[in-house]
Amino acid sequence: MSDRPTVSVPQAGKRRVIDHAQMRSANMGLILRHLRDHGACSRAQLASGTGLSKATITSLVGSLVASQLVREGEVSRRGQVGRPGTEVMLNGERVWGVGLEINVDYLSYSVLDFASNIVREGSEPLSPEEHAPEIVVLKVARMIESIMAKSGEATIAAITITPPGIIDYEKGIVRFAPNLGWRAVPVIQMLHDELGDVPMPLYLEADAKLAGLASYAEYRSSEVRDLVHLTGDVGVGIGIISGGRLLRGWSGFSGEVGHMTLDPEGPSCRCGRKGCFELYVGLRPFLASLPVDSDARDANIPLVERLESLRERMLAGDEEVLAALDVIKRDLVRGLGVIVDVLNPVILVLGGYFGYFAEVLVPFVDECLEARLLDEGHRVEVVPGSMGIAAASRGGAMMALERVFMEPNVLHGLTA
Amino acid sequence: MSDRPTVSVPQAGKRRVIDHAQMRSANMGLILRHLRDHGACSRAQLASGTGLSKATITSLVGSLVASQLVREGEVSRRGQVGRPGTEVMLNGERVWGVGLEINVDYLSYSVLDFASNIVREGSEPLSPEEHAPEIVVLKVARMIESIMAKSGEATIAAITITPPGIIDYEKGIVRFAPNLGWRAVPVIQMLHDELGDVPMPLYLEADAKLAGLASYAEYRSSEVRDLVHLTGDVGVGIGIISGGRLLRGWSGFSGEVGHMTLDPEGPSCRCGRKGCFELYVGLRPFLASLPVDSDARDANIPLVERLESLRERMLAGDEEVLAALDVIKRDLVRGLGVIVDVLNPVILVLGGYFGYFAEVLVPFVDECLEARLLDEGHRVEVVPGSMGIAAASRGGAMMALERVFMEPNVLHGLTA
Repeated sequence: MSDRPTVSVPQAGKRRVIDHAQMRSANMGLILRHLRDHGACSRAQLASGTGLSKATITSLVGSLVASQLVREGEVSRRGQVGRPGTEVMLNGERVWGVGLEINVDYLSYSVLDFASNIVREGSEPLSPEEHAPEIVVLKVARMIESIMAKSGEATIAAITITPPGIIDYEKGIVRFAPNLGWRAVPVIQMLHDELGDVPMPLYLEADAKLAGLASYAEYRSSEVRDLVHLTGDVGVGIGIISGGRLLRGWSGFSGEVGHMTLDPEGPSCRCGRKGCFELYVGLRPFLASLPVDSDARDANIPLVERLESLRERMLAGDEEVLAALDVIKRDLVRGLGVIVDVLNPVILVLGGYFGYFAEVLVPFVDECLEARLLDEGHRVEVVPGSMGIAAASRGGAMMALERVFMEPNVLHGLTA
Repeated sequence: MSDRPTVSVPQAGKRRVIDHAQMRSANMGLILRHLRDHGACSRAQLASGTGLSKATITSLVGSLVASQLVREGEVSRRGQVGRPGTEVMLNGERVWGVGLEINVDYLSYSVLDFASNIVREGSEPLSPEEHAPEIVVLKVARMIESIMAKSGEATIAAITITPPGIIDYEKGIVRFAPNLGWRAVPVIQMLHDELGDVPMPLYLEADAKLAGLASYAEYRSSEVRDLVHLTGDVGVGIGIISGGRLLRGWSGFSGEVGHMTLDPEGPSCRCGRKGCFELYVGLRPFLASLPVDSDARDANIPLVERLESLRERMLAGDEEVLAALDVIKRDLVRGLGVIVDVLNPVILVLGGYFGYFAEVLVPFVDECLEARLLDEGHRVEVVPGSMGIAAASRGGAMMALERVFMEPNVLHGLTA
């Protein structure tokens, strides 16, 4: 069965032929991605890993070194056969990617260099009084300016901003963000007005998709091609990697499972529907099942601190916290079961606030999903998210860098 | 926002570079797919449509004409500017694709030629007494032999067989087909034993995926890239086209929504779960809500005849049939709502037995899904399936042909 065809159902007119100049740029991207996914390599290893000829590798690596995207390292003796070769590796310093998350109670950012190193990350609280679009955008603009001021020699490839709401990708608008009270906020235009001319593009992307990208980065060199990353606090969503690609849906609205109906007779949701998934498994029902006077319900304490404290209590066997997890965990399995039936992922990551309670939730979800398997050949592996609330901004930084990994020519000064 | 990058998250080591010989074959595939999706074209139109140079088009079309995959037609005067050019078009006669469906109460087949013309289609009933794997495989083998005997000059590119159960793609085994009572049936091996040496590969694929492919064929030349095709009779499933590609999931088990849980307290399903989607919307609950003495419930009458008769009654306003549709339609929306939330398709096709009742179900589902929209930018268009029960076998024939559209070199005698 190994010769069964890839049914790609291509759309004519969308998939263009590769001419020789584009091929050179595409092959440079191939080399860069190989170095990202496999680490430092000799030119011979690059040739066997990418399928490019050694002569082509020599030529393209030369260009990449000249443009400072790649640097040469120590002489390698890993390959025991033949002459030792000089290893090449990504040079992080030349390019940065930036991701910024607007959440209900914080703003956060991640800066990754081209070698996937975290240059800096941080967050600042956002209070309900600061939810007006003008105030949020001003704070985001200051964050961007501060990052740009510290970029030194590095070129920022792009900046990805993730809002807690529905995005109009064409217009750069947040159409609807119920938890901020936003409707039709032209975030990209407002940022451009605030920042003046900036050389890099600004993108909007949904937090769950970015968290999915960030999770998938850990599996890039593996066989995993189909992954679902559950994320959320008050709102809940999934990022879907399918066949090695981010699944966006036709209007970028895939994975918006927070409002999928678990019970059509259930309580009303602010979205207008009833019995939505996040009403059963989101942060609100979880916290609401803790005692009223619990610090965990004190909105004046930053969410991450409260989650870390609850996590400590869970690890110590605190019955209140375990009871609160009991409130959400069965409905969590119900929703995840549906998602697994539709998408058939091989890895299911419990990220977002769920990741803080991985020691309880991961084995429970794993066992329940295994119990409902129709056939043993389709088991999904449930794993904890490892990035906490940084997943979305880190994924945003990765998406920004992806621009260079796919089309290295976009960087000024690169000789193709 | 037009320059936002395609985040393809490629897996190094899986995506190989294209060398010049492969490029020539890939570009021949590009031409073939362009002709399939856009119909007859002049060489100049092919050049502008594919991005290939005119010299390359001339050379590749020459090879394709020599191999009889393409033929030259009348002189075209469509393009008003410049010399009139001879149109080229797909030559259907050289290659056939075959799809065969094993269903609970019938076997059916579709033969498509390379120009997507239906060469022949047909079905024969399968009674419960004939459900033993040996009998079914023998009947399928006879069907294949009969098709091969009539193929004349045409080469059969491949044969796709779709069973009503879970497939092990690697081994060519039907792992579990509850409606046939099958467990671990090595269909491909059994067919090879029965048929002896056959020159073309035999594939297994799930019916919902094939029906999705067949539906998507109608949208190939459009902007549609994200489509969901609902199919089913007793069992229910979806075929998912995402970003223009068939979504398979890691083990080919995507879209198995017939057993997603609508109600965890619901009735037990033969799959071992409770409250499965198909218990509420499948053919059985639909038929069971008709009077006991109804012809529609007489298993001795072929299903298609019963469905066509019920359809006539629906169109005539028959209250029994409308009441039976009332029984399933709200739960149909519940399940489809979840699917739409996860996948964000732009087209939702109601195929399978649902397609027979499109005049009632399509407007109802459309209205309900519109009423639950979180944002007007994400509307899905609900359309009726147009192929009836032929969708799966026709999709199987398309998948068989896809092999040649992707890699024309696989055909013996083609000079690359």
